[in-house]
Amino acid sequence: MNKQLITATLQNDILLRAARGEKTERVPVWLMRQAGRVLPEYRAVRKQMGSFKDLLKTPEFACEVTLQPVDILGVDAAIIFSDILVIPEAMGLNYEMIESKGPLFEKTIKNKHDIEALQITQANDLAYVIQAIKLTKRALNNRVPLIGFAGAPWTIFAYMIEGSGSKTFAQAKKFLYTQPEWAHLLLDKITQSTIHYLQAQVAAGVNLLQIFDSWAGILSPQQYTSFSLPYLKRICDAIPQVPITLFAKGAFFARQQLSELNCAVIGLDWNMDIAESRAMIGPDKTLQGNMDPCLLYADYNTIKTETIKMLQQFGGHKHIANLGHGLYPDIEKDKVRCFIDTVKEYKI
Amino acid sequence: MNKQLITATLQNDILLRAARGEKTERVPVWLMRQAGRVLPEYRAVRKQMGSFKDLLKTPEFACEVTLQPVDILGVDAAIIFSDILVIPEAMGLNYEMIESKGPLFEKTIKNKHDIEALQITQANDLAYVIQAIKLTKRALNNRVPLIGFAGAPWTIFAYMIEGSGSKTFAQAKKFLYTQPEWAHLLLDKITQSTIHYLQAQVAAGVNLLQIFDSWAGILSPQQYTSFSLPYLKRICDAIPQVPITLFAKGAFFARQQLSELNCAVIGLDWNMDIAESRAMIGPDKTLQGNMDPCLLYADYNTIKTETIKMLQQFGGHKHIANLGHGLYPDIEKDKVRCFIDTVKEYKI
Repeated sequence: MNKQLITATLQNDILLRAARGEKTERVPVWLMRQAGRVLPEYRAVRKQMGSFKDLLKTPEFACEVTLQPVDILGVDAAIIFSDILVIPEAMGLNYEMIESKGPLFEKTIKNKHDIEALQITQANDLAYVIQAIKLTKRALNNRVPLIGFAGAPWTIFAYMIEGSGSKTFAQAKKFLYTQPEWAHLLLDKITQSTIHYLQAQVAAGVNLLQIFDSWAGILSPQQYTSFSLPYLKRICDAIPQVPITLFAKGAFFARQQLSELNCAVIGLDWNMDIAESRAMIGPDKTLQGNMDPCLLYADYNTIKTETIKMLQQFGGHKHIANLGHGLYPDIEKDKVRCFIDTVKEYKI
Repeated sequence: MNKQLITATLQNDILLRAARGEKTERVPVWLMRQAGRVLPEYRAVRKQMGSFKDLLKTPEFACEVTLQPVDILGVDAAIIFSDILVIPEAMGLNYEMIESKGPLFEKTIKNKHDIEALQITQANDLAYVIQAIKLTKRALNNRVPLIGFAGAPWTIFAYMIEGSGSKTFAQAKKFLYTQPEWAHLLLDKITQSTIHYLQAQVAAGVNLLQIFDSWAGILSPQQYTSFSLPYLKRICDAIPQVPITLFAKGAFFARQQLSELNCAVIGLDWNMDIAESRAMIGPDKTLQGNMDPCLLYADYNTIKTETIKMLQQFGGHKHIANLGHGLYPDIEKDKVRCFIDTVKEYKI
């Protein structure tokens, strides 16, 4: 009821209608990392602010860069400018974002004692994100929906153990093999924190939530079943108010299992065949994706042709066009616009 | 004929018989990166030699570390100690191996001109590897087969464009999208070089060849079909003398296509479900793999239980036990031995 009310007031609600499985007049489109270095306008704000984390923690500027792709690129949704690692920080683990390297945590989780010392995030612990969402909702003035997000518990766990990005996340996986009970305790604390955080985002006005399981693909199918899926299920079940998108990068082996969860949309990466994914997932869920971000390095003609090919393969309905991963920072803005325009001009 | 002769003289030829699809009395086993930092004996030789590349280029020492896992771990095959990047170096691109970082090339391939300047490796260009193979064959004294190897053309291409390891290999993929004809020219030159190199390895006495397509998993299925599979096919067709193993890490989407190539064995990583892979690949090929290397961080009991579970899933025949990726350097030697012993003691 509340959902209908919010949706009804949006000038452009095509993304929400597609997420709910309704037939739409065209395919909606937004891009992961659309608010970011790909836009010169973003880089100007970053220069003004200094660090990524300063930008993140200043609601006025987070709001400003969240709006940029709506104004500049014409996407069908805004996604709040934030970071999945605000959750571990709110739980007690500070991190730095090292330029062109990635996140680095001051300390990492090694044992039960470290896990017990962590706090469970409460609804008002991440006030700067919630404030940014409220400012953005006001500034958007119901033009397009606002997407909120969080990391999946397994992905957050991986960073908390490893302390940084990694090719193999061997330390995080070692923890699963050597201390499985404490792994579950930590995953439970992350899940509780994430649910509180996402509920606060919904209360502040986000229209859809996306859960990023960025490191899904380094787990074996068996480990994914034990250490990721049950926590994704809890999140989906806890937040019935808005549609949820699950994006489990690399988890080709879990597509059928993901389809059984209480989510509206499943994100596909560019390795996943579209027809095969639809067959595994069944007809109910909306699919999101899945163009290789590197396509946007190609010439305009190739971008158009390949984008149309992708749209045809998805079949026009129950599809939200996106990339299969976030935009790379050195892609030209006009190439991004070419992708978006091609989607918007495509006749179903 | 020649193959039968060589095999006949081996004291332990179980790996070759399994590769050829014959029923064997138990499952053969070896490990990717079995000659390496996981062995204290390897670290001692490394300390003596200085750099990784010095070790690589000194046949006596390459031979010594190749033999170590046969003596110390009791594996069913030796694999020549070398590096897939010797091919780009022989073609004209020098690289350094930076400790705990990975390879770094002095210059990279940017355009047609750079590609035209590259040499095609001839049979005797990599004399230090061939010499190491000959020394090792003599020292092995027919105890177990010796495995030779090379990188897949796409993986070598990726390093030649990118100049180092990368999470996304965005530059290499950009080259595929923006200069596809020159990409094919470069892949052709790498393929010719690789065939010459592998033929020289066979002439020097290797009993089986493995092709590592380490970065298969970052391509879309469509790109893999265009830019990797045809070159793998050429390699398989050019070398009928010994069984070939194709290991395309992350290319879950290409399992059926790989099964159509002239190879004897297909390697699986730990993300790939065993029963599903067998169904996609069909009954003919031998499968290799596919334990998660991180399992070897677990306790002995877990290692045994999970290894037996894997062996049961493969069904005992047409299986070469291995990990789904190379050994990580901080795994304990006794844990590695536990995996190997469990395989060797398992009754089919």
